[in-house]
Amino acid sequence: MPEQLTRHRERGRSDRTELDAILDAVPFGTLSTVVDGLPWVVPMLFARLGDQLILHGSTGAGALRQVAAGAPAALCVLAVDGVVVAASTFESSANYRSAVVHGTLTPLSGDEKSTAMTAMSERLIPGRTTEVRAMTTKELQATLAMSLPIVDGCWTAKARTGGPAGEEPAGVWQGVVPTRTVFDPPVPAPWVPTSAEVPASVRRLARDGWQA
Amino acid sequence: MPEQLTRHRERGRSDRTELDAILDAVPFGTLSTVVDGLPWVVPMLFARLGDQLILHGSTGAGALRQVAAGAPAALCVLAVDGVVVAASTFESSANYRSAVVHGTLTPLSGDEKSTAMTAMSERLIPGRTTEVRAMTTKELQATLAMSLPIVDGCWTAKARTGGPAGEEPAGVWQGVVPTRTVFDPPVPAPWVPTSAEVPASVRRLARDGWQA
Repeated sequence: MPEQLTRHRERGRSDRTELDAILDAVPFGTLSTVVDGLPWVVPMLFARLGDQLILHGSTGAGALRQVAAGAPAALCVLAVDGVVVAASTFESSANYRSAVVHGTLTPLSGDEKSTAMTAMSERLIPGRTTEVRAMTTKELQATLAMSLPIVDGCWTAKARTGGPAGEEPAGVWQGVVPTRTVFDPPVPAPWVPTSAEVPASVRRLARDGWQA
Repeated sequence: MPEQLTRHRERGRSDRTELDAILDAVPFGTLSTVVDGLPWVVPMLFARLGDQLILHGSTGAGALRQVAAGAPAALCVLAVDGVVVAASTFESSANYRSAVVHGTLTPLSGDEKSTAMTAMSERLIPGRTTEVRAMTTKELQATLAMSLPIVDGCWTAKARTGGPAGEEPAGVWQGVVPTRTVFDPPVPAPWVPTSAEVPASVRRLARDGWQA
């Protein structure tokens, strides 16, 4: 028997702790900026490092360079948690958590850049940096690392949880179909012996996902 | 024993069929536009209806009204398929499919609006519109339905599939941890008798997800 739901309404979140929880839920989002007056958007991996969101890309990427050079930017993060089945199509909806952080990206260099790159790697595959060689100077030079600060008043967060809002009419099924992301068993590359031990970071990722 | 991977590199996709497959993979994305010269972005549900992307919102939403009134817009859709574990952090990455459709939103009315709203409902919960009452006139009036046309030259699609690119060095495990979205068993609202039969649309959603 599935657990019964309590009712909540879609609502904004104003607590920084709630923002951080959303930003820490998934390591990817979409980065929007304005190029020649038009919206420009690209999906990106990111990592939260305290009060900063770290993004990276190739130094060759044109529009990304523009963002790094000070154009206004917005990172949008979305986690979808379920489908809300109401008695009407009008009230049917999705459960989700989302956040938008507005600001200006700052390119990072030196130690800040190294720290940021480590944070990015650890966000995608926690524990991996201790299992592999460090980034080479050439690799660091080929990478643009950027910081988007989290500033009070420059972000919004929203979440919708719980069941459908309406109670009309009796006899029509209403509820939620929850969704979630699962990680499947690691698949070795063709040149990796199948007898090779799967490293701890990869086993943990397949088991726990991106939970921070 | 997990299936072995073949190697592919991240690459752009130029085939409209591939674009449609990405747009049909998930029913949500982020809508970006420009408000007072700054990027504005919001996560949204959407549905593809042939050569149109349908979006909807409350008629009360301010910035959404601006987009509907002809501001340039871009819808970005992202599906993440796995974590690519390379021998170095530099080569590690994510497998994903993404698309960005640029254009101008047109508000829909009359029969076009009704058709669009049905498409939205059917995208989120396939088959549900045949199980519940039709939208009322009041509900239709409270809803802004918009169309973003898919026009050649105004979209981009990208996908990264397969294992890590590098083969260095032997002895370091490399491969992929696949991720996917699963749907859990339907959870009835508190006021729905637990003996109530779960409707066909909801059973199908929990079983097949959003597969078009």
